[in-house]
Amino acid sequence: MKISIIGGGAIGLLCAAYLASKHKVTVYVRTESQRDLLREKGLTISLIDKMEKQYVSVELFENWDGSGDLTIITVKQYQLEPVMKQVKKLSNDIRALLFLQNGMGHLQAIEELTVEELYVGIVEHGVMKLDGASIRHAGVGSIQIASLPFCGRNRPSRIGERLTESSIPNFELHMQTDPIWMMQKKLVVNCLVNTLTTILEINNGKLIENAHYERLLMPFMEEITGIFEWNNDQKAVIKQYVWKVIKQTGANKSSMLKDLELGRKTEIDAILGYVLELATKKDKHAPLSAAFYEMLKGKEQEREGGI
Amino acid sequence: MKISIIGGGAIGLLCAAYLASKHKVTVYVRTESQRDLLREKGLTISLIDKMEKQYVSVELFENWDGSGDLTIITVKQYQLEPVMKQVKKLSNDIRALLFLQNGMGHLQAIEELTVEELYVGIVEHGVMKLDGASIRHAGVGSIQIASLPFCGRNRPSRIGERLTESSIPNFELHMQTDPIWMMQKKLVVNCLVNTLTTILEINNGKLIENAHYERLLMPFMEEITGIFEWNNDQKAVIKQYVWKVIKQTGANKSSMLKDLELGRKTEIDAILGYVLELATKKDKHAPLSAAFYEMLKGKEQEREGGI
Repeated sequence: MKISIIGGGAIGLLCAAYLASKHKVTVYVRTESQRDLLREKGLTISLIDKMEKQYVSVELFENWDGSGDLTIITVKQYQLEPVMKQVKKLSNDIRALLFLQNGMGHLQAIEELTVEELYVGIVEHGVMKLDGASIRHAGVGSIQIASLPFCGRNRPSRIGERLTESSIPNFELHMQTDPIWMMQKKLVVNCLVNTLTTILEINNGKLIENAHYERLLMPFMEEITGIFEWNNDQKAVIKQYVWKVIKQTGANKSSMLKDLELGRKTEIDAILGYVLELATKKDKHAPLSAAFYEMLKGKEQEREGGI
Repeated sequence: MKISIIGGGAIGLLCAAYLASKHKVTVYVRTESQRDLLREKGLTISLIDKMEKQYVSVELFENWDGSGDLTIITVKQYQLEPVMKQVKKLSNDIRALLFLQNGMGHLQAIEELTVEELYVGIVEHGVMKLDGASIRHAGVGSIQIASLPFCGRNRPSRIGERLTESSIPNFELHMQTDPIWMMQKKLVVNCLVNTLTTILEINNGKLIENAHYERLLMPFMEEITGIFEWNNDQKAVIKQYVWKVIKQTGANKSSMLKDLELGRKTEIDAILGYVLELATKKDKHAPLSAAFYEMLKGKEQEREGGI
């Protein structure tokens, strides 16, 4: 297939590196410097002790015209605005879109797009951007995708099926049937792991290695899943899932902690901010989410040097 | 008066240095090395840009016999046990005791002592121990003391009155009438300031300078004062008091943060642990206190190198 990838961050480059082995991939980046670097040096991906190089075509985002079979949008949720503007302008020319953002605040706006096929996905890989043309694939996971309906009616999912059928080593793609449940599961993990590791400034694994920190997980999870109004079966699934993710990524720093340490904007508003908005809408009490949110926003402000 | 001071920490040495100007003071310490250091070098106290030296008599704690007019016990709450053992043994010989611990978990045991005059006090000074024979009096405040009843009946308070009447510059002592309210007020301040500054690893002042951090104070205060079953007037008083203390000690590190950074045991159990026990007894929900408690215990464990 002809696949466009918007965004030259860790996730965008990861998708580009692996999909290029089976598809014709173009990466769309924001800056000329990254474009030139990728064109000149190729895209380097290191996985455990192996290093590989891929040459993919690279263009500036302003040249993206929506053509081809699929466009994957990998920018962060808080960077979506200019992309969505362009998406709306080109929507008649776009066949299929896949959004790979954390958080859920943007889902409603995405769901209303009139493009033919529309997917959201969650990325369960551990990946770090080393520079504009190289990434380290630190944890092999998979990507789950699901089709978003339009006005309550299912859209076709031919591209999604083709994408998930073509098997690429270390880069599995799976179709899921329930996008909301899939995104909520990921959101709960992000809330728990990103929030607590960033407040405490610890690697993910400490959340279960330190018994005191582990005792933070259940009450926080109960609060969030209460806001989502999940039943006990769903709560049991998420509990297993959270502990599994923490074990698998034990040695890693969460993305939010990395963002904080590097003085970058964190995804706190897309993640815990969304949960708090939902709690307000549903008139539910969320003392832990509110406190942890202020702690993180406060830390973010301190790292920026205060306002 | 003849005053014995048990404990050679920051508070013990602060009391010794100032009280020695009006009274005959003996400090009782645990180690021979501190005794010898104090005997040899005297007690140095630095206040702003002024440095003074006092020679007080110093003995090992094992030589304390309960004689004299007043004994001030300044060890931390979690170090009280061996002192209380000795107090009980000597209770017929002791005229008056003043306890200067944070927390409230020990109050019941103290209240049951049969000594003639019995006081608890709270220390509102900022003071740092520099070594076994010198302290820095970083913030001039005062000490509030109140008499504890025995079996519901008031004890005499002659020593307390004499102590608070004798005016010592930079070392005011005031009598209060309600020991529980006095201790609870201090406990709430300690809960809020010590807990949050230690989790966030910030100086006290940041709690009001950073608007996000400031938004942590009220919900946490509401939770604790709800457990104490305070009325709105009491809540208004404590709110003012907390903000005043934070402003006055803005540039300081809280004692708990200092303890954590130096790998020492913190007073978390005497402070937030007490609040949680009370919540359990009264069957009250305390999600913030519980979460912050685990964060601090977890941090303490990490600093100790884990178990």
